[in-house]
Amino acid sequence: MSLDALPGFREFYPSELAERNFIIDTWREVARRYAFVEVDGPPLEPLELYTRKSGEEIVGQLYSFTDKGGREVALRPEMTPTLARMVSAKANALRKPIRWFSIPQLFRYERKQRGRLREHFQLNVDIFGEADVTADAELLATAIDMMRAFGLTSSDVRARVSDRRLLRGLLVLTGITDEMLPGVYAVVDKLDREPRASLEAKLRAGGLHDVFIGRVFEVLKHPDLDTLRDRYGDVPELREDFTRLARYFECLEALGVRDWVEFDLSIVRGLAYYTGIVFELFDAKRELRAICGGGRYDSLLKQLGGTDLPALGFGMGDVVLGELLRARGRMPVWSPAVDVWVAYADAGLLDDAMRIARRLRDRGRSVEFALGGQQLSRQLKAASAAGAREALVLQPEELERGDAVVRRLDTGDETRVRLDEWIGAH
Amino acid sequence: MSLDALPGFREFYPSELAERNFIIDTWREVARRYAFVEVDGPPLEPLELYTRKSGEEIVGQLYSFTDKGGREVALRPEMTPTLARMVSAKANALRKPIRWFSIPQLFRYERKQRGRLREHFQLNVDIFGEADVTADAELLATAIDMMRAFGLTSSDVRARVSDRRLLRGLLVLTGITDEMLPGVYAVVDKLDREPRASLEAKLRAGGLHDVFIGRVFEVLKHPDLDTLRDRYGDVPELREDFTRLARYFECLEALGVRDWVEFDLSIVRGLAYYTGIVFELFDAKRELRAICGGGRYDSLLKQLGGTDLPALGFGMGDVVLGELLRARGRMPVWSPAVDVWVAYADAGLLDDAMRIARRLRDRGRSVEFALGGQQLSRQLKAASAAGAREALVLQPEELERGDAVVRRLDTGDETRVRLDEWIGAH
Repeated sequence: MSLDALPGFREFYPSELAERNFIIDTWREVARRYAFVEVDGPPLEPLELYTRKSGEEIVGQLYSFTDKGGREVALRPEMTPTLARMVSAKANALRKPIRWFSIPQLFRYERKQRGRLREHFQLNVDIFGEADVTADAELLATAIDMMRAFGLTSSDVRARVSDRRLLRGLLVLTGITDEMLPGVYAVVDKLDREPRASLEAKLRAGGLHDVFIGRVFEVLKHPDLDTLRDRYGDVPELREDFTRLARYFECLEALGVRDWVEFDLSIVRGLAYYTGIVFELFDAKRELRAICGGGRYDSLLKQLGGTDLPALGFGMGDVVLGELLRARGRMPVWSPAVDVWVAYADAGLLDDAMRIARRLRDRGRSVEFALGGQQLSRQLKAASAAGAREALVLQPEELERGDAVVRRLDTGDETRVRLDEWIGAH
Repeated sequence: MSLDALPGFREFYPSELAERNFIIDTWREVARRYAFVEVDGPPLEPLELYTRKSGEEIVGQLYSFTDKGGREVALRPEMTPTLARMVSAKANALRKPIRWFSIPQLFRYERKQRGRLREHFQLNVDIFGEADVTADAELLATAIDMMRAFGLTSSDVRARVSDRRLLRGLLVLTGITDEMLPGVYAVVDKLDREPRASLEAKLRAGGLHDVFIGRVFEVLKHPDLDTLRDRYGDVPELREDFTRLARYFECLEALGVRDWVEFDLSIVRGLAYYTGIVFELFDAKRELRAICGGGRYDSLLKQLGGTDLPALGFGMGDVVLGELLRARGRMPVWSPAVDVWVAYADAGLLDDAMRIARRLRDRGRSVEFALGGQQLSRQLKAASAAGAREALVLQPEELERGDAVVRRLDTGDETRVRLDEWIGAH
């Protein structure tokens, strides 16, 4: 067929859809335990919702176009701006903190990268209206507990955390100004993905003097918290940041996820709007892209013209997570699972098969029967292929007596049963 | 905030998302009973996938645009062409009949209609590879059983069915040619929504002579099956159609849904590609648009360049169904539902609250606690607002003894409990 799916868009056949549903069901279950409630927004939004605050990485890859009414629109590349708008619109009516999750399909358009997906599903978990660091720990615990729910351990997945306030404080000490920060963060975000020379060139292109460039890399040379505390713990401007981080780790301990987490100053995450603690989850072997990323974005709601509410959240996509689950043997293998196959030895019994199917379906069973009046042997083959373990076989004389035969499809063993009793027990 | 959602796109706050999930969960449950398995496809497709065969009603309202790579694309207006492509691509590997369902979000763009939605979610249920009329009955039974699962009865919802082959046969008898049929079907589809004069004008504009126009309306004057059989039952060209319809109703009887169904020759449904039995579900009071529509489309797969497989299916949207469920009191009212609220009388006990929350969450409970160290009275108010019936209240001396207080939030009654035992029982 010439009308293939567009490049980068997935088709989900039954086994692939089952994997997607396994991921989404697990997300929903853990989100429920953490008392988050589900919301959703439009997959298409005004372009400006993203160009205002999302940052270059997102804006450069927008799946945007002009609609028939002349509006500049984009298929949503991320969920946070939509959530920020929804919270702002009902901020007074909603109990704080607001604990929301959502599972949008997200889109991006890159011209040159072949084979890269242009859509994925992403869990978003967000807390609005809580400035305390306990909320940061609760959020990361939610993400980590999802890993546990998928059967992964702290040997499979690691969390790296940092705090943009501490990084900013350290950079400011060296003379970096707030105007330079967005460019510096964008470079730090790529620290382990690009060679240093290329990153230095980017900082230079951004107008940073060589002296400052050297200082940026000096600050990042010791990314662990103990060394940083030893070196800078007495600097008054940084005391609050160190205290907050110490409390953060205490909370992670109480929430039972401390051993999954490491501090790493070089984590800043790609989005422009983060303002505080940021984190990412990645596979311990470092073979895949990040599984999950998030952080605090206390200014975004106000910057988008909404309510001034502190906020934090994370996104976790289905693609990298799916790769990891398959690699670690944690993805269930789908197979068809019809509960009861109703077979008939004689085409004249098709109506009886339908009546029985209806009764079993009313009892919640998944039931199939041959629609086209096939021969019994073909029906039984189809029953096996449909994943049924047993077939209920109807035969004229037996049916008249209210009996039927139950045939085990693996062994071929047959048992005569009273039809009404058997249905009642299924 | 100035960056509002685009016109016609919905935001789903918790109560609205809960209603959507109620509908989708019920769809999934009934589809499972009827042994359909879930699939999905891309929300964005090549424009030509729809312009080839979907018919004017869909093509005139396409949410289409040119992407950044110069491709003509459209947000999917219907799911059937995507499914036809997916079946064709793996037709040999898939067991027939293929029984699939999917729940896509669909889109349309109409310039002039204010207040009308531009997206909705639509259940699609399809059977591929079965020409027998039993499949037509099984399909309609699935749609009707969904109404039952929502708590609706045959007094709330009616099904109207027809067969395009019979209608075509009757029209051909009057001299109407196959070339005229698409235009005639488009007009018949609007029979109870537009005045006769306007429909006659449309037929005339389509090149139909007044003599034929008169005959079209003559054929449709007696839309019930008994009258039609009395008048045309002996016409050899129509005998097969009457036999098939008689068998169809027998199957509906065996499947337990006969009393929901009426024959109505004027049902043709809007999509161009239907070839056989077509049906729709609508509210018995006729206050809403159709709840569901579907039928047989035996030629579509081949026409789209794929495998030549008979096929049939229906679509059921979330919007009209939601209106009906609310109108009949069948839509559950959402309220927040935290299982356990862990409160603490002293901010120093927050870490204990977190440890207990973790243990309860590990047991599958939905647990919340105050993140910001609020006063106990505020915590208990929040607990009520979160939908908890009880709060587990931690107090320093009691906690040291391994005890806690369980407070009923409606009455204020308090009971002292052994903490470990209480957690074990929750």
